[in-house]
Amino acid sequence: SRSYRIAVVPGDGIGKETVPEGLRVLDAAARRFGFDLKLDHYDWSCETYKNTGRMMPEDGLERLGESDSIFLGAVGWPGVPDHVSLWGLLIPIRRGFDQYISLRPCKLMPGTKTPLANRGPADIDFYVVRENTEGEYSSSGGRMFEGTPREFVSQESVFTRHGVDRVLKYAFELAQTRPRKKLTSATKSNGITFTMPYWDERFAEMAKSYPGITTDQFHIDILCAHFVQHPDWFDVVVGSNLFGDILSDLGPAVAGSIGIAPSANINPEKAHPSMFEPVHGSAPDIAGKFICNPIGQIWSGAMMLEHLGEKEAADAILRCIEKLLAEGGPRTRDLGGQAGTEDVGRALAQAV
Amino acid sequence: SRSYRIAVVPGDGIGKETVPEGLRVLDAAARRFGFDLKLDHYDWSCETYKNTGRMMPEDGLERLGESDSIFLGAVGWPGVPDHVSLWGLLIPIRRGFDQYISLRPCKLMPGTKTPLANRGPADIDFYVVRENTEGEYSSSGGRMFEGTPREFVSQESVFTRHGVDRVLKYAFELAQTRPRKKLTSATKSNGITFTMPYWDERFAEMAKSYPGITTDQFHIDILCAHFVQHPDWFDVVVGSNLFGDILSDLGPAVAGSIGIAPSANINPEKAHPSMFEPVHGSAPDIAGKFICNPIGQIWSGAMMLEHLGEKEAADAILRCIEKLLAEGGPRTRDLGGQAGTEDVGRALAQAV
Ligand SMILES: CC(C)[C@H](C(=O)O)[C@@H](O)C(=O)O
Ligand SMILES: CC(C)[C@H](C(=O)O)[C@@H](O)C(=O)O
Repeated sequence: SRSYRIAVVPGDGIGKETVPEGLRVLDAAARRFGFDLKLDHYDWSCETYKNTGRMMPEDGLERLGESDSIFLGAVGWPGVPDHVSLWGLLIPIRRGFDQYISLRPCKLMPGTKTPLANRGPADIDFYVVRENTEGEYSSSGGRMFEGTPREFVSQESVFTRHGVDRVLKYAFELAQTRPRKKLTSATKSNGITFTMPYWDERFAEMAKSYPGITTDQFHIDILCAHFVQHPDWFDVVVGSNLFGDILSDLGPAVAGSIGIAPSANINPEKAHPSMFEPVHGSAPDIAGKFICNPIGQIWSGAMMLEHLGEKEAADAILRCIEKLLAEGGPRTRDLGGQAGTEDVGRALAQAV
Repeated sequence: SRSYRIAVVPGDGIGKETVPEGLRVLDAAARRFGFDLKLDHYDWSCETYKNTGRMMPEDGLERLGESDSIFLGAVGWPGVPDHVSLWGLLIPIRRGFDQYISLRPCKLMPGTKTPLANRGPADIDFYVVRENTEGEYSSSGGRMFEGTPREFVSQESVFTRHGVDRVLKYAFELAQTRPRKKLTSATKSNGITFTMPYWDERFAEMAKSYPGITTDQFHIDILCAHFVQHPDWFDVVVGSNLFGDILSDLGPAVAGSIGIAPSANINPEKAHPSMFEPVHGSAPDIAGKFICNPIGQIWSGAMMLEHLGEKEAADAILRCIEKLLAEGGPRTRDLGGQAGTEDVGRALAQAV
């Protein structure tokens, strides 16, 4: 039977609570749809860092590299600076495995609330595709005249044809699978006058190969405004590392789903494992209480199955989430209910 | 009597319709509050460019430099690329006159609608302070391996101590004048690891001099989400050129005021003229019909008077705008009314 090897990294805080529920539902899906998941558990986290001085062992990437996918909880804890936690675990995985696509659905789920007035599920249902390896998150930069009034710091954004074209191609291909076949590009070529015109140029070039796709583009400032004013305009939105980062938090916020949204860090060629993680963080304020919402983790599990080729199982999980939300199944506090983390996980595993 | 010299640049599209209404109200305020406005009119625009090959004459900045303030409509027209129109008029003014502060109120006005559910005027009332001369909008960058698969383009963001400290100082001073005395900083130091940690460092340093100000900071991705989810958290928000640009469109969008919001490009030392312009653009789709809303222009005029030291007159104009909106005065189509551009201008001039 079909079998997949999954590296499981709960990480910090509520990651330790949501990941077991994600696994519970994945296990139910595996049994129902007849495939097998082999799990390798890794307890790498900020605690590991406090004990060993590293977020993961030196051969961490090598070990993860043996898996088909990585199932991640959350990374980060008060007292451990981001450049240690994120740059010691999350970012090395994204880059080391060339997970050059970050994909996030922005979808108003039935039975949940958006902060926008007069908007229903039909109005908010799009994807943000983010470039995940280069652009504004570069390691080229530095400081001069340190400690003097002339001090300055610079950092280079780097856009390569290789990097830009492959994320644009992915976005066009994704748009092609959607009923509206529409792709929006995030730019800022009126202000950022080297890299962004290049992004626009490659977008226009790539569009020629996809005559069936309707395209448009907006500067990131007004695009953020449009997310709030006209979320119904969007189908697939593609952006650079920074713009995609912004849009893929703003999108779920507009959809009211930031607490339950999933995200995928994908190497589309499957040359390396891809990584699936909820959008929310480690939530120190509620960690340890088992009251957090596991849906983001479970939905991330569904995205993982889709990536592994188990589309039927992925769809089944998503339908169960929708049903639970729409029909008043157990809800955690963030959604106005009383249920615990495990109640939701059990209900969804059961439903699957 | 007090007298100010104003350079008037209507620019393109609806700028030509809103600026006269702005002047009408400014004139009424001058008469009522006993000061004098000497106007110099400049018809620089994309039309000028088509006729002369330049957006403004070679000595344009010099001529503007003789004024106390610049009252601008809108810049940009289809067929004229941004790098010509914006970089030939708007950006040279901002930079040439070291207008290093861009200031935009984000305020839900009584009688208008926000796209957010269950939010009233008390929930959305903050300022965005944007650095307006350096940062991500730099002129340092280039392209290598052009036309080959190895092609790449880079652009440097530049943050100087001089540039960062002065915008932070302005923001702290502004926060000090507000009842809540709160300042939020936009960062992304977890991903953009040279310039943004420097921004954070200077923010922390500056905060020491303002012990009475409550401060916090958020990464730009989640900050955009918070604008939508919790606009009531914010009082004054400060950001770099790019982050401030994004937030100062998203803020008015959230407040439902993008069509009526003003903006100021300020040189606080008054070594050079400052410039006041509405947030909206030249709106080619409705230009020439005299149906556009002049309130953004008129409100920008109020900000100009405040900058010139005529605070009483500025407050009076703002109160008249609030009253007109709250009490069903004439409204243009964007606000669900039938009034023309001039009807609104006349009503406000009358009220002042
Ligand atoms: C037109 C453009 C260059 C400008 C900017 O980004 O500064 C505009 O968006 C603004 O905010 O005034
Ligand atoms: C933690 C941070 C570096 C990260 C990013 O900006 O990539 C996060 O915001 C995300 O979107 O996954």
